Amino acid sequence: MNIKTICILGAGTLGSRVALQSALSGYEVRVYDLTQKALDFSLNTMKKILHQLVKAGQLEEKTVPEVLGRIEFTLDPKRAVENADFINESVTEEIEVKKKVWKQFGELAPEKTWFTTNTSYLLPSMFAEESGRPSRFCAFHFHDVFYSRVVDIMPHPGTDPQMIPMLEELGRKLNQVPVLVKKENPGYIFNTMLMALIGAAGKLLTKEVASIEDVDRSWMVNFHMPMGPFGILDSIGLDTAWHVTHKLPDAASQAFAKLLKEEYLNHGKLGEKSGEGFYNYPHPAYKAKDFIL
Amino acid sequence: MNIKTICILGAGTLGSRVALQSALSGYEVRVYDLTQKALDFSLNTMKKILHQLVKAGQLEEKTVPEVLGRIEFTLDPKRAVENADFINESVTEEIEVKKKVWKQFGELAPEKTWFTTNTSYLLPSMFAEESGRPSRFCAFHFHDVFYSRVVDIMPHPGTDPQMIPMLEELGRKLNQVPVLVKKENPGYIFNTMLMALIGAAGKLLTKEVASIEDVDRSWMVNFHMPMGPFGILDSIGLDTAWHVTHKLPDAASQAFAKLLKEEYLNHGKLGEKSGEGFYNYPHPAYKAKDFIL
Ligand SMILES: NC(=O)c1ccc[n+]([C@@H]2O[C@H](COP(=O)([O-])OP(=O)(O)OC[C@H]3O[C@@H](n4cnc5c(N)ncnc54)[C@H](O)[C@@H]3O)[C@@H](O)[C@H]2O)c1
Ligand SMILES: NC(=O)c1ccc[n+]([C@@H]2O[C@H](COP(=O)([O-])OP(=O)(O)OC[C@H]3O[C@@H](n4cnc5c(N)ncnc54)[C@H](O)[C@@H]3O)[C@@H](O)[C@H]2O)c1
Repeated sequence: MNIKTICILGAGTLGSRVALQSALSGYEVRVYDLTQKALDFSLNTMKKILHQLVKAGQLEEKTVPEVLGRIEFTLDPKRAVENADFINESVTEEIEVKKKVWKQFGELAPEKTWFTTNTSYLLPSMFAEESGRPSRFCAFHFHDVFYSRVVDIMPHPGTDPQMIPMLEELGRKLNQVPVLVKKENPGYIFNTMLMALIGAAGKLLTKEVASIEDVDRSWMVNFHMPMGPFGILDSIGLDTAWHVTHKLPDAASQAFAKLLKEEYLNHGKLGEKSGEGFYNYPHPAYKAKDFIL
Repeated sequence: MNIKTICILGAGTLGSRVALQSALSGYEVRVYDLTQKALDFSLNTMKKILHQLVKAGQLEEKTVPEVLGRIEFTLDPKRAVENADFINESVTEEIEVKKKVWKQFGELAPEKTWFTTNTSYLLPSMFAEESGRPSRFCAFHFHDVFYSRVVDIMPHPGTDPQMIPMLEELGRKLNQVPVLVKKENPGYIFNTMLMALIGAAGKLLTKEVASIEDVDRSWMVNFHMPMGPFGILDSIGLDTAWHVTHKLPDAASQAFAKLLKEEYLNHGKLGEKSGEGFYNYPHPAYKAKDFIL
């Protein structure tokens, strides 16, 4: 593996985090997005995370300028991939956007560049061909990079198997725990399990077996976890949850999607980010001391 | 609520723990089983737990004799329920055994006695009638009492609703977090969710999407948990897991039940208790420091 320069396409929530971790791990980083506003947002996000890392004693304050110094923000696609060894794409989760971006960067990137996508719910085979380099194309899917440090390596049928050990090595260098998804699977490993858990919780609610609070209590107390499925849903965003759930064909998922839509989305309740979801924020009941009595 | 004397039917794993917690909470406790061997085992189990509680600084050594002094072990069914305010039944998980025990104790118990069962997978309505007192009959289902402190309150359609607040109060006095299962549901709340999680993990394995270790890693690292679904299965026991899974009609559960049977049960691999399951004990790989790299 001889990776020195990493190009990040899409400077949103996830792209900013992957870019920052790459710089923390010593790589030269280029961050590309469509607007200056997006790039400014990205730098801001990074500064906040760096501040938290310093506060948590995980980083020395004096190294911050050095880390940021390794990151170049650019609106120029050519400069973004100039001499890049590796691309990790984190643009908007829409198939047409992904296709367009991969066609564009497949043409611009040097021959040596490895291509990876961070897509959460699409599959790499859906747009690997667009890159013109499907054998050097693989999903490399982060979670939140800093708190949840798993990175999924998910090849599509045309991926060169030699890419896998390379990605495992890079994943470790990026302070992640690499896991191999041996064949394409929507939701990779963790999201597959999380969705099953959330589906069961949703069914307990729509079938009126138990309350939101008692479902969360059961999970939190038995597993000593800081939140239960409905608290987790609020942090994921109920719009995202609906997006995934309403496409599932079974009756239980349909019933839960309906509840999400009619009782939450239609009233602007999107979870933590909108201030209201299953719980009210910034002080959700499940975080109160008397929740578990 | 005016409960002073609690009668525990069945002095196995769970009965012993509920009995001990009842004594710790100040109740007079009678523990009934069929054989002296079972009662001796029970006393031993309790002593071990008390020792751990003392070691963990949760109990003063000098109160141990006082706690044990509140527990009476008996082979005499009449004495077991004499003047008892409350029964919690933890006999073997077999419908015919439960029916027999409830017929017997329904006749022996004083009129005031409340009846509760700890059944994990059966439903209270399957044997409430046998007790002759279905309106005073409810599921009151513990997890492991000390580490996982949830108690499910699950009425059957004939349960007197007044029983619910009484059980909530008693649950809290027994240092548990009571949750209400509003209608009969196999698996209550937590097991319903746990089974969904385990089903998803089993499917990732049988579909050859990911390895046992990578499934567990994904769960452990993303949720900062000490074990993943396959580690949990080993601790539950693969025989119990098979028992539940092979009854589910869907193809994924059937495939996982087949794998459990053919690759584990048939070779005497029952999980932690047999020394081998998905991992080898007493030092399973998932507890090793290098598991998460
Ligand atoms: N947010 C998460 O927690 C998370 C976790 C894992 C994976 N992902 C995946 O990462 C990707 C990005 O998600 P996000 O949450 O960061 O989204 P986001 O909306 O925060 O960011 C997407 C960014 O892509 C940019 N973009 C759109 N079209 C572009 C183009 N043609 N060229 C360059 N940039 C373009 C947008 O301007 C925006 O800044 C998605 O595929 C998502 O599924 C997200
Ligand atoms: N073990 C757990 O973690 C757990 C958790 C929740 C609920 N439960 C439930 O608790 C109940 C007991 O489970 P366990 O794991 O303690 O089983 P166990 O096998 O350890 O104990 C069952 C006990 O019942 C006794 N018994 C059998 N027939 C009897 C009779 N006619 N009269 C009196 N005693 C009799 C047996 O001798 C044995 O000591 C089951 O219904 C189970 O589903 C168990």
